[in-house]
Amino acid sequence: MRHFEEELAELKSKLLEMSGLVESAIFRSVTALTTLDRELAKSVISNEEKINLMEIEIDDAATRLLALHQPMASDLRFLTAAIKINNDLERMGDLAVKIAERALSLMEQPPVKPEIDIPQVARLAESMVRRSLDAFVKRDSELARSVLTADDEVDDLRSAIYEELIRNMQAEPATIPQCVNLMSVVRSLERIADHSTNIAEDVLYLVEGIDVRHHAETKRH
Amino acid sequence: MRHFEEELAELKSKLLEMSGLVESAIFRSVTALTTLDRELAKSVISNEEKINLMEIEIDDAATRLLALHQPMASDLRFLTAAIKINNDLERMGDLAVKIAERALSLMEQPPVKPEIDIPQVARLAESMVRRSLDAFVKRDSELARSVLTADDEVDDLRSAIYEELIRNMQAEPATIPQCVNLMSVVRSLERIADHSTNIAEDVLYLVEGIDVRHHAETKRH
Repeated sequence: MRHFEEELAELKSKLLEMSGLVESAIFRSVTALTTLDRELAKSVISNEEKINLMEIEIDDAATRLLALHQPMASDLRFLTAAIKINNDLERMGDLAVKIAERALSLMEQPPVKPEIDIPQVARLAESMVRRSLDAFVKRDSELARSVLTADDEVDDLRSAIYEELIRNMQAEPATIPQCVNLMSVVRSLERIADHSTNIAEDVLYLVEGIDVRHHAETKRH
Repeated sequence: MRHFEEELAELKSKLLEMSGLVESAIFRSVTALTTLDRELAKSVISNEEKINLMEIEIDDAATRLLALHQPMASDLRFLTAAIKINNDLERMGDLAVKIAERALSLMEQPPVKPEIDIPQVARLAESMVRRSLDAFVKRDSELARSVLTADDEVDDLRSAIYEELIRNMQAEPATIPQCVNLMSVVRSLERIADHSTNIAEDVLYLVEGIDVRHHAETKRH
């Protein structure tokens, strides 16, 4: 049986690798959308399997560590947080696939150009994924808090984009199917940001023992 | 220190209580929408705090059981599944709040009557929540599988409703803001169904040791 600390370090590095895969999936799905790149969109969809397999691998590793080493207190909290965070990452991977699917659907429709900045939302969401995972691995509560702030920004952008899309649909009803697809993309990005927020909240609980889940959630509504 | 089995039974009963709160929140949010009942919608929003507190209570209880009793194999899997399922239930509670918020927003707008059957989707989603939790507590894989089947039904209904709403928006652009709200409600119900599916997949893994997560997800896309 290997040393606990060594296996824990390996688990952390696997979670960072998983987060890298998920960030890349988000980036590629949005790039596929903006550059109308069908192959890129398909690569996100075919890559989902890898993320799914990695989720199971990490889940098994964390459960094995719990079973074999029966860690106490802080390591225990870390492992249960890892199980939840892994789950959040896998769902973000699913959302990147949803974006890629909407991108493919938009490529079949006449192009529309509403004044909306999806890449900006995507950059924010990717940065939230990266920061929430870094905050977890480094147990950095300040970094975790920065994710909560970014989430408010994403929510504001999402509202503004929705309003713009509704105006666009009313002005040009022929573009409604495309605008519905774009709404779906923005919503998926918002949900990715929400998953990062969940991770950041888990980190704050882990590091500071404070439960911010209520407050953060009250703020979001 | 109380007996492990006793504490485990208490944890199960808390999870069932939590699932009851969540089912009730879903039911009330949709009833508020269909009967235009402002007070009912507000009660869903004010009740969210209770669900959030319960999530923390269950999370703490499961982690304490892991720490104090250091269970092996099957009980360990059960407890890590309980932590994930608890998380899914809390997010379903958030989604019921989102539905209640959309209901309140629709009450401020001129009424629209597209031919869509939101209560049917809601009934299916509630039944999935109940069955997935029952399957977990009873370790009943057949019941868990019935949840996966119901999820496909929800996805089909969601697609049909989306198409109807898009037709409605194109025919009457003035109703676009209302239709966007209705889309949001249906999407929230679909996400509630997805969370139940996650629970059912965890149950199948717990009971049969088979990982159905890939296949079920591949099917959904």
